[in-house]
Amino acid sequence: MTRPLAVSLGDPAGVGPELICEAWARREAERLPPFFVCGGMELLSEAAAVRGLDIHVESVGTALEAAEVFARALPVVGAGDGEYLPGQPGQSGARLALASLQAATALAVSREASGVVTGPIAKAELAKVGFGFPGQTEFVADACGVSASDAVMMLAGPTLRTVPLTVHIPLADVPASLTTELILNKARIVDAGLRRDFGIAAPRLAICSLNPHAGEAGRMGREEIEFIKPALAALNGEGIDATGPHPADTLFAPRKRSTYDVAIAMYHDQALVPLKTLDFDQGVNVTLGLPIVRTSPDHGTAFDIAGKGTADPGAMIAAIRMAGEIAARRAAA
Amino acid sequence: MTRPLAVSLGDPAGVGPELICEAWARREAERLPPFFVCGGMELLSEAAAVRGLDIHVESVGTALEAAEVFARALPVVGAGDGEYLPGQPGQSGARLALASLQAATALAVSREASGVVTGPIAKAELAKVGFGFPGQTEFVADACGVSASDAVMMLAGPTLRTVPLTVHIPLADVPASLTTELILNKARIVDAGLRRDFGIAAPRLAICSLNPHAGEAGRMGREEIEFIKPALAALNGEGIDATGPHPADTLFAPRKRSTYDVAIAMYHDQALVPLKTLDFDQGVNVTLGLPIVRTSPDHGTAFDIAGKGTADPGAMIAAIRMAGEIAARRAAA
Repeated sequence: MTRPLAVSLGDPAGVGPELICEAWARREAERLPPFFVCGGMELLSEAAAVRGLDIHVESVGTALEAAEVFARALPVVGAGDGEYLPGQPGQSGARLALASLQAATALAVSREASGVVTGPIAKAELAKVGFGFPGQTEFVADACGVSASDAVMMLAGPTLRTVPLTVHIPLADVPASLTTELILNKARIVDAGLRRDFGIAAPRLAICSLNPHAGEAGRMGREEIEFIKPALAALNGEGIDATGPHPADTLFAPRKRSTYDVAIAMYHDQALVPLKTLDFDQGVNVTLGLPIVRTSPDHGTAFDIAGKGTADPGAMIAAIRMAGEIAARRAAA
Repeated sequence: MTRPLAVSLGDPAGVGPELICEAWARREAERLPPFFVCGGMELLSEAAAVRGLDIHVESVGTALEAAEVFARALPVVGAGDGEYLPGQPGQSGARLALASLQAATALAVSREASGVVTGPIAKAELAKVGFGFPGQTEFVADACGVSASDAVMMLAGPTLRTVPLTVHIPLADVPASLTTELILNKARIVDAGLRRDFGIAAPRLAICSLNPHAGEAGRMGREEIEFIKPALAALNGEGIDATGPHPADTLFAPRKRSTYDVAIAMYHDQALVPLKTLDFDQGVNVTLGLPIVRTSPDHGTAFDIAGKGTADPGAMIAAIRMAGEIAARRAAA
């Protein structure tokens, strides 16, 4: 029997629980692989009811059992639980979110689960209960014994894949954070990840410029000359199909998007703006470079709409489907 | 009779001439207002022939005559001309482009033309023949006696309008370029421009943040706190409907786009990436804050495809139509 995916609740006051229930309810139409949730049995039942979903949530002992009941019930592994208080984050919810993340990741690391799909958390809430990582990506990397710098966040939607080389830092700190080594290291991981996890035989990487018009030969910034072009030369020397530095403004236009498999961006918004503009409700955050499979819906807790039945399940469904596809590809390799 | 628009050739080795001809050929289907070109009669005839357009180009003495012949021929005012050498920019072409820009702008300033639509130029080529402005926007502002800082570039497509507060500078210089006064001054001009030129009674301005996640209360940059929020408070105090600072990554998603009339961005790519991602072939560059009407197709000379018949006329057509609409609105005010 196929090993199921482990899904973490995310912050229980956010949209995570209801979207997991919705994904399970649509498992057949969406052809989703078997998955289970770590903890939150009562909470999930209540979230489903509030969303108007008539589903059965069932506590099981192991991942193996979860795969067996998946067809008839949403399986839950582990005893952690709490009250369903949508839109009201707090410390007990944060503790449940953290326990669920830890359990789901551990089951993926131990190979009982085929991968982990992490529900959306609130970093500020988790920090209050002792979570010492900038985000879930760094936590999962650490659990795998991988350096955070070797775990690469890729955003993947139906029409676009992007990788931000720098993430949660002030824009003013971006230029000084870019080095040839950073670009090289991450581009290599992206290239390998697209081959292994996405079945792309010869990935085409488009590297964004930092400055407008790619710096116009140094007249509007020199990072292209000093860092990006040397990285491109080295990548090409290794046989990696990387092009650029591309002016970012035209790189995401329809005709251009068909010329590459992933765009590597220099900063957070350069990667996230086009992705969310085009694929807002279907963006998946996938971590490349890890020994385990890890995806996440590319949205936050959305406390403001939690429990109202309006949150779009597209990204959660896409994250579960993509994790299943990657796991199957790795298993077949 | 309605005064016609003056159109400048742009660099004659680029796609400008053929797109002007194409726009004229489609004038009825696209319901374009009357326009004429400044110079380039033989060159336009040849560009039309190379593109496979069977059109008549006619030299006329004045803007008034141009309006009369527009229905049957593409009118040209002025004697400047040159050889049609698509894809081969040079100094004589640059001189013709500059003369055409000067003449078209002068006719708008003198009110013989109802506005000016500027064809795409190559700044590096123009600089070689003595053009001392960073771009056409600054040239047109100067011709109107308006300070360049009071001429605001807005990019307008069918689904989105954006204004970059800073433009052709290195990304590293953006944070230090932002001031409350800069944001205030440009936002006021945008507000007034949307009322006067676009007929929007109560414009809704969405102000982008500079940093990821709007800086997360200062944890990822302080420009939101130090410059953007004070500007917002002042704008709101003046009765201007400005909101923000909005995280840029989610601001251009479909549901968000319906909540504002214009997004004010902090830097070039923040404004241009979503615009070109969504409205690539129909983006218009319109200058707000001028006594004359000025638009331009939001693309470059595209030397690589000039003369090949493949350049999309959408942006040129949209620029001519928008200039006509603004001129009509101003005339009726």
